[in-house]
Amino acid sequence: TTCYYLLEKETNVDTAKKAILNLLNYLQIVNVTKEILVQAVRSDFGEFEDGVQYFSAVTIDNITAFITRNKRDFKTALIPILSGEEL
Amino acid sequence: TTCYYLLEKETNVDTAKKAILNLLNYLQIVNVTKEILVQAVRSDFGEFEDGVQYFSAVTIDNITAFITRNKRDFKTALIPILSGEEL
Repeated sequence: TTCYYLLEKETNVDTAKKAILNLLNYLQIVNVTKEILVQAVRSDFGEFEDGVQYFSAVTIDNITAFITRNKRDFKTALIPILSGEEL
Repeated sequence: TTCYYLLEKETNVDTAKKAILNLLNYLQIVNVTKEILVQAVRSDFGEFEDGVQYFSAVTIDNITAFITRNKRDFKTALIPILSGEEL
């Protein structure tokens, strides 16, 4: 929804909706479950939202890295944390 | 995550985390799936986020109503839309 919000702000509703539909075709979407929310809130992540993202990511079997613009918020992560530039 | 954000702003990290953990015990959490995201983006909802909430809600078998502070954003809904005051 953040991605949609930014797209809509830069373009318009139709373009943003088409772009999101396109993205959904390419991406594997993780089901956010109660278990993930509980793990996130019980974790050491300072921000609940960071925890939700991290524990969603690690449900993916063959995940090799987690990409973020805020590497320092993910210091306790058990998978490699990369910035966009490091991709 | 919005709820956590508001709680943390009003109290502190520990209190907010405890409150969320408590809430998670009482609430039925809907798994947000790719199908829900596609339905939301293809729907007539002006805001993608409203669509995500609505289509998450209607996956619940015995749902009787949807509670919101913005009833007018859910005009096209097929289930009763109530404000908090109408509960």
